[in-house]
Amino acid sequence: MLVLITYDVSVISEGGQRRLRKVAKICQKYGQRVQNSVFECVINTTQFAQLQMELLASIDEDCDSLRFYRLGDNYKAKVQHIGVNNAVDIEGPLLF
Amino acid sequence: MLVLITYDVSVISEGGQRRLRKVAKICQKYGQRVQNSVFECVINTTQFAQLQMELLASIDEDCDSLRFYRLGDNYKAKVQHIGVNNAVDIEGPLLF
Repeated sequence: MLVLITYDVSVISEGGQRRLRKVAKICQKYGQRVQNSVFECVINTTQFAQLQMELLASIDEDCDSLRFYRLGDNYKAKVQHIGVNNAVDIEGPLLF
Repeated sequence: MLVLITYDVSVISEGGQRRLRKVAKICQKYGQRVQNSVFECVINTTQFAQLQMELLASIDEDCDSLRFYRLGDNYKAKVQHIGVNNAVDIEGPLLF
């Protein structure tokens, strides 16, 4: 399934920059950055639970926020992009 | 249906700050800010088309990006929030 993760990490709070880097690094293990604070991950339920656990351990719940959106397996028609595109098709073939 | 909008506006490009304010203002007309660059809008197909048209006219497609995620009508179980919460239930009763 596709899981969309969006986050706001308070970089002005103590340790904020470190947490921001940590959150991005964890998300990168599971998926693809599509915008600055937005990741798309094609993962199963077990990986989703693992990802949530890692993220929960890395944020400060009093300052930061995480949102998860489960878009299911048939997600391609539900997603639309306009403008500059830094993402790749995470399920497509890799071209070098 | 719930439409999630995420955006990256290049604030270092010419007019970027102005475009960022414009994009946020348009999104606010249709929905609820849930994170810095993330809005949730409960809208119909006509409103969605209108919103897209307004946003398209406001961004610079060479520097900025918009993403739209259509989560359908049964979206409540698909969305999960962790951490500090600045959003409200957009379909719930208003409490003063």
